Amino acid sequence: MNAQTGFEKLEVGYDIPALPGMDEADIQTPCLVLDLDALERNIKKMGDYAKAHGMRHRVHGKMHKSVDVAKLQERLGGAVGVCCQKVSEAEVFARGGIKDILVSNQVRDKAKIDRLARLPKFGCRTIVCVDDLANVADLSEAAAKHGTTLEVFIEIDCGAGRCGVTTSEAVVEIAKAVDAARNLKFSGIQAYQGAMQHIDSYEARKDKLDIAIAMVKDAVEALKKEGLEPELVSGGGTGSYYFESNSGVYNELQCGSYAFMDADYGRILDKDGKRIDQGEWENAFFILTQVMSHAKADKAICDAGLKAQSVDSGLPFIYGRNDVEYIKCSDEHGVIADPKGVLRVGEKLKLVPGHCDPTANVHDWYVGVRGGKVETVWPVSARGKAY
Amino acid sequence: MNAQTGFEKLEVGYDIPALPGMDEADIQTPCLVLDLDALERNIKKMGDYAKAHGMRHRVHGKMHKSVDVAKLQERLGGAVGVCCQKVSEAEVFARGGIKDILVSNQVRDKAKIDRLARLPKFGCRTIVCVDDLANVADLSEAAAKHGTTLEVFIEIDCGAGRCGVTTSEAVVEIAKAVDAARNLKFSGIQAYQGAMQHIDSYEARKDKLDIAIAMVKDAVEALKKEGLEPELVSGGGTGSYYFESNSGVYNELQCGSYAFMDADYGRILDKDGKRIDQGEWENAFFILTQVMSHAKADKAICDAGLKAQSVDSGLPFIYGRNDVEYIKCSDEHGVIADPKGVLRVGEKLKLVPGHCDPTANVHDWYVGVRGGKVETVWPVSARGKAY
Repeated sequence: MNAQTGFEKLEVGYDIPALPGMDEADIQTPCLVLDLDALERNIKKMGDYAKAHGMRHRVHGKMHKSVDVAKLQERLGGAVGVCCQKVSEAEVFARGGIKDILVSNQVRDKAKIDRLARLPKFGCRTIVCVDDLANVADLSEAAAKHGTTLEVFIEIDCGAGRCGVTTSEAVVEIAKAVDAARNLKFSGIQAYQGAMQHIDSYEARKDKLDIAIAMVKDAVEALKKEGLEPELVSGGGTGSYYFESNSGVYNELQCGSYAFMDADYGRILDKDGKRIDQGEWENAFFILTQVMSHAKADKAICDAGLKAQSVDSGLPFIYGRNDVEYIKCSDEHGVIADPKGVLRVGEKLKLVPGHCDPTANVHDWYVGVRGGKVETVWPVSARGKAY
Repeated sequence: MNAQTGFEKLEVGYDIPALPGMDEADIQTPCLVLDLDALERNIKKMGDYAKAHGMRHRVHGKMHKSVDVAKLQERLGGAVGVCCQKVSEAEVFARGGIKDILVSNQVRDKAKIDRLARLPKFGCRTIVCVDDLANVADLSEAAAKHGTTLEVFIEIDCGAGRCGVTTSEAVVEIAKAVDAARNLKFSGIQAYQGAMQHIDSYEARKDKLDIAIAMVKDAVEALKKEGLEPELVSGGGTGSYYFESNSGVYNELQCGSYAFMDADYGRILDKDGKRIDQGEWENAFFILTQVMSHAKADKAICDAGLKAQSVDSGLPFIYGRNDVEYIKCSDEHGVIADPKGVLRVGEKLKLVPGHCDPTANVHDWYVGVRGGKVETVWPVSARGKAY
């Protein structure tokens, strides 16, 4: 205890929003809250689905950036490991004991490649995506230098319009180069259709995935002809996993958001036309916020703004309430329309953010609650790991 | 050095994007870069303006969340101290040695009020905003408990539509209650018109500020009649400071973004119809990013997406380039239209983000560069301090 300030580590509200054992009512806002019961049910449900369909489930760690959540997904959901997007994220998961890690992205900078090539020394299988022949020699050289093996997925751009090659010829050409390079192993195909995940209509999503699956099948056939059958064909998200699972060609899923849910994913419809957050998955991830001004009768101001969430995919909704609406977000404030003046200063609300991934990335902690009590506080282990 | 991993603290690319003395070319991306020459010129220019107009300048620390930048603003720009929006931010600035701190926001939660009332023990003047009579007793009780004095600004909502009262009667009523409360001191008025700062037209901004100034003048007159002349009348941002400075009623500015600049502020026009980032202020704040895939001829993919910035106020622009354009932002990727195929994998670009405040808040470090070298690396001291 510092005699002058009366502060010590960890100080609730300064370093951390809550401590285990606290009442849920005493959590400092704004902060991330996980409903542990809902989280566990989501994880178990997806795990059971993957198992029933003979799919490996490599959970997307870039969504939650949490070693603790990843380990829960291994334990309850049978996850085989994680994928993530950055070398620095992979380092966090490797140090945390995850044993099968895919960097589902290109690594081109020499310094990053050197760090990637050291990762297998943590005892983890390390896979990286490649979409350019010029990358193969750099990866091989670094792995040879460190005496490690890097496994490689060739990335197909099957509709996301970002990284990845677009022809089976290019897939085969790079796979052959990988196969011939020392300290590299050709292990499979990365084919995640990111652009279709958030289309509301199930049928419209299916149409996009049909195209993706056809591209992947063609590439697999072309690889087989060269004696390079891929061990793993990996992809699939929360809006598409049933298509990949029934495709006959994918054997590994990469779902992330199903575990937490968010407003943008929640809106998409299942094959019966029902929002996926009203049956398929539960909202387990919230921003807890508090009303801190109500100087105007019909408007409440809460303490969760842009520093507590990302609004790239729209504003949050207020969980369990249809009498009040979050209508505007500025740096540190949310404006809540409260036409009947039902909210009171000090009242706490749970927001379901528009987009879970970048929202998790602005917080240091997950507060896990169950039965009105704080059960656990987990660090957002890879928060800010963007390198 | 860990023999198994070959890692030690601080590891460039894992814990930190750069170290002082490095070449600018070796900085790990994505990260925040400050052009120290431009930053210093911006800070000095605003400081000189404030001094010439007899205004105190209380720089907005919620923008940069950096003790180091705040101290540079004190040293080069004559800043009197900072304002910030959260108690946990104020704690960071107080611990960092800032001696005059305004929480330009309401503090209503009992635990937060208790922390606020301890702040003067750091040796700093501590001011907080109030917009509700019910808050006065709580603040007074906490300050009395800790034997400190909290100063109070009454907040007027002069157009921002968030916190603050809207009548001079309400200002006077709360000021009287503050004046009568033990361990509180009525010190002034908070009147920041946040909603007009980003209107492009100078004349349209002036019209909004004229209304705000009239409200503030009326409140000051009403307070004077009660013998409660405010010591400080505080407000003004990067899009309005000249209006407040020439109002005859404000005596303290609260500008923040002028020091860094961003794309959204840069677009607004000065009184001659010129963008303010082309004369009035310089871009000093950038996201350094790197091209990491160019598998499609007309499209480059860079490594700065939503985890490296906030896009609430629009996409970033690429500094100094009009041949390529940042057109899409996903979690970890930026899509850059490169119609002539001029970019190469590994090439680094400087992005000017749409909104500097929430962009700074997702990073841990500012890399300060001058003359092609990394001169300093500053922590984003209050990053994530949202409580």
